[in-house]
Amino acid sequence: MSSTTKLHDLKPLQFASEDTIQSAMKNISQIVGPDNMTVSKSELDNHSTDSSNFVPPKDHERPHCIVYPTSAEQVSQIVKICHDENIPVVPYSGGTAIEGHFIPTHRGICIDVSKMNKIVQLHEDDLDVVVQPGVGWMELNEYLEPYNLMFGPDPGPGAMIGGILATNASGTNAVRYGAAKDNVLSMTVVLADGTIIKTKNRPRKSSNGYNLTNLFVGSEGTLGIVVEATLKLHVKPKNEVIAMINFKSITDATKTVSGLFKSGITCNALEFMDDRQMLAISEMGTGGERTWSPHHLLLIKLSSPNLNSLNDVIKTVKDVGIENNGFNIEIAKDDETKEEIWRVRKTLLWNSLQWAKKVKPNATILPTDVCVPVSKLPELITKTMDRLNDADLLATAAGHAGDGNLHVLVIFEPDQAKVAHELINEMSKLAIELDGTVSGEHGIGVSDKRELLEQELGIETIDLMRTIKFALDKKGILNPDHIFKIDPSEDRHPFS
Amino acid sequence: MSSTTKLHDLKPLQFASEDTIQSAMKNISQIVGPDNMTVSKSELDNHSTDSSNFVPPKDHERPHCIVYPTSAEQVSQIVKICHDENIPVVPYSGGTAIEGHFIPTHRGICIDVSKMNKIVQLHEDDLDVVVQPGVGWMELNEYLEPYNLMFGPDPGPGAMIGGILATNASGTNAVRYGAAKDNVLSMTVVLADGTIIKTKNRPRKSSNGYNLTNLFVGSEGTLGIVVEATLKLHVKPKNEVIAMINFKSITDATKTVSGLFKSGITCNALEFMDDRQMLAISEMGTGGERTWSPHHLLLIKLSSPNLNSLNDVIKTVKDVGIENNGFNIEIAKDDETKEEIWRVRKTLLWNSLQWAKKVKPNATILPTDVCVPVSKLPELITKTMDRLNDADLLATAAGHAGDGNLHVLVIFEPDQAKVAHELINEMSKLAIELDGTVSGEHGIGVSDKRELLEQELGIETIDLMRTIKFALDKKGILNPDHIFKIDPSEDRHPFS
Repeated sequence: MSSTTKLHDLKPLQFASEDTIQSAMKNISQIVGPDNMTVSKSELDNHSTDSSNFVPPKDHERPHCIVYPTSAEQVSQIVKICHDENIPVVPYSGGTAIEGHFIPTHRGICIDVSKMNKIVQLHEDDLDVVVQPGVGWMELNEYLEPYNLMFGPDPGPGAMIGGILATNASGTNAVRYGAAKDNVLSMTVVLADGTIIKTKNRPRKSSNGYNLTNLFVGSEGTLGIVVEATLKLHVKPKNEVIAMINFKSITDATKTVSGLFKSGITCNALEFMDDRQMLAISEMGTGGERTWSPHHLLLIKLSSPNLNSLNDVIKTVKDVGIENNGFNIEIAKDDETKEEIWRVRKTLLWNSLQWAKKVKPNATILPTDVCVPVSKLPELITKTMDRLNDADLLATAAGHAGDGNLHVLVIFEPDQAKVAHELINEMSKLAIELDGTVSGEHGIGVSDKRELLEQELGIETIDLMRTIKFALDKKGILNPDHIFKIDPSEDRHPFS
Repeated sequence: MSSTTKLHDLKPLQFASEDTIQSAMKNISQIVGPDNMTVSKSELDNHSTDSSNFVPPKDHERPHCIVYPTSAEQVSQIVKICHDENIPVVPYSGGTAIEGHFIPTHRGICIDVSKMNKIVQLHEDDLDVVVQPGVGWMELNEYLEPYNLMFGPDPGPGAMIGGILATNASGTNAVRYGAAKDNVLSMTVVLADGTIIKTKNRPRKSSNGYNLTNLFVGSEGTLGIVVEATLKLHVKPKNEVIAMINFKSITDATKTVSGLFKSGITCNALEFMDDRQMLAISEMGTGGERTWSPHHLLLIKLSSPNLNSLNDVIKTVKDVGIENNGFNIEIAKDDETKEEIWRVRKTLLWNSLQWAKKVKPNATILPTDVCVPVSKLPELITKTMDRLNDADLLATAAGHAGDGNLHVLVIFEPDQAKVAHELINEMSKLAIELDGTVSGEHGIGVSDKRELLEQELGIETIDLMRTIKFALDKKGILNPDHIFKIDPSEDRHPFS
């Protein structure tokens, strides 16, 4: 009668035989039509492996097939068959997740929702829009452009609403608009047994029972499959500028972040790039015409409905920057300059890797994604970079300073893989000690973070998640093994 | 193996015998000490009946006792005893909820957390604070005053953090800061079996598994008891003014709300009071020295970090108001005037009742709490007020226009009670048709909204909530019968 579910009290997962699956696939093919199902090897591969390959699938970890439903009813029918026959189901949308989110650890059926890509209805006066899960956030923003509206989260290019909601994704805009969870009013979800539920209607505010919307957001496809969502929209910021401020000390940069919050101004983005990142840009010459200072940099997007107020905002930012020993303060106002600057921010992963390859030709890169209270950022960054340096590992640091969300990019040659992973896990443990999390926006998937999450939240909190998982999905068919273990016999280590 | 739980598949709830409860109370008394337990009739009464008495308890609906734990560990021990012995547990904090939230439908133990009232730790630079559930939001704001910080939600005076989180409460500030769910980073919760879990650490952003924090927020004590919470804080707005604009048409007032959003300015509050409300104020002379126009009124709180920008904001508001046929535009800047104006907003319930009693001496009042997309407000208000008028029921309307959250105050004499309740339920159904909810901020409790919620969300969505309820609380001991039914034999109608 316990409220939580211990892993060791569970039985190993048992899924359908090959024959059963082949027979179910025939039935599923009739639902979606043969053109909307594939067993092509290349498709199976790219629905198991993301382009970064940070968390690679094992050789056998491929779905039996991929289906492309075109309606909520089809998703429901497919899931119902899989539920009846005990077949794992892995949802897939943009495929941009990087923590092995769609690795089919027990094979099964991959449901790719990318053909469910309609913008169903815009409610301009209510600032919301109803969309299917296969709509990309960039396409959505293109559609919204003439209305002067936008969707808040700005994760990686190519990400679709289904996956954005499943991972509670965010990006550089989160300091102003929050993460996915803060930008969704309601979802229609297919549950593990095929039942279709809608979490809410469209009111902006409600006290109407359990917050099912936010239970599904971030659940990485383990509780249900999103087939429609009503998203909050925002009016596009007017008169946007980018302020750039250099710092010699990370503590000063962080104090500036806190200082800006306390000043009461609103930042649309508040990004940090460390001195090594800036060095990589200089040395690679990827920063355009501009001469980039080799010091730590804060990039601050600011806007205001009126130009008078914008000048006040800029003055405040300068004052706070100078107060905290910032220098080289520059305000980029014209579109060309702003684009040049922002491109440097957006390409930093690629840039760091190319830079590393100049000295380490076989280098690969691992991004990290911890998030701590803003005041803890200096300790996190300094200690981590020192440790990496001591171990002769190249690394650059950048992140969403306004949220305390840091991406250290760890660069290593194949023979350094083990120590790189160890140090990354050390960094995650440090983030936990600093009252933070192992993942600010990427999610857990089947990465090493799955084990670290137990340290972060405590076994009992994970046990409670497991209770919820099995209450909604008694057979454990939905994206099994993701976020936390549900099979006591499983011993999957992503990098071994 | 279904993902949802039908009411008719359940057995009636079975709780402990009187003897068992008396014996458990002795053990509980040893945990908290005899001074922290009471069976005084007046205490039992006021822990079952809120001061509004909108949803009254039945005669037998009194707890066996009230206990006042002073620590999370004590709450855990008490709940564990109740779980082992099958005794209902009803949590209680400020007692300001008005939907029968703490009516002990199966009696049992009332856990009053008001002695757990410590502010544990302020993290000034991170804009968060750790508090116990018995801290009042007004006391918290007093504590935060010297730091120039504030808590977002502003529900009824006397509300405490425990209840604010349990009902996802909000208030006039929600248009800027959101509801309780948007203002909490983490909670420590005692589960039904006494297990203590913490939902998260303190990062502002995370993609680290299921959003347990927001599952407990709004669950009205049916899933766990909050024993500590880390709350987000906001910097207090600078240079705040109140704009007042009159309208002859509700549609124009609503268009102004949408127009303000689209202008990109930030409102700290965006309140509506209808012409009958304004008439009540005029006729009662409760509006101070000021002469109040008898037309619909929007009250708009505005602020800006700088005075220049404030003037720009005011200009925008005036422009949008005039564009939508607003008149009598006034900007209140000095503290005395602002207080006078806001007092009228804050006392409107009392004012409406006094006004009604002039013509209907035995009148009582019922507030409603529906919330619809902003564009649907005119239809909701107009149709509802017409129906009430036709039925010879007095009513005034006011609400959080920026959120689409409307409080129609229905005034009636005892012989009109039945028709008043019928019309209120009709209004809720209209809100559902308009894509809204039966409760924007008050919650469901054991009010009529419990049945209406099934119409709003669909039976299957309620069935899913029931699945979660019994997964976490297999014996159904935590605040049973609240939000939705969990006992097929129960037939409690609040007003019959």
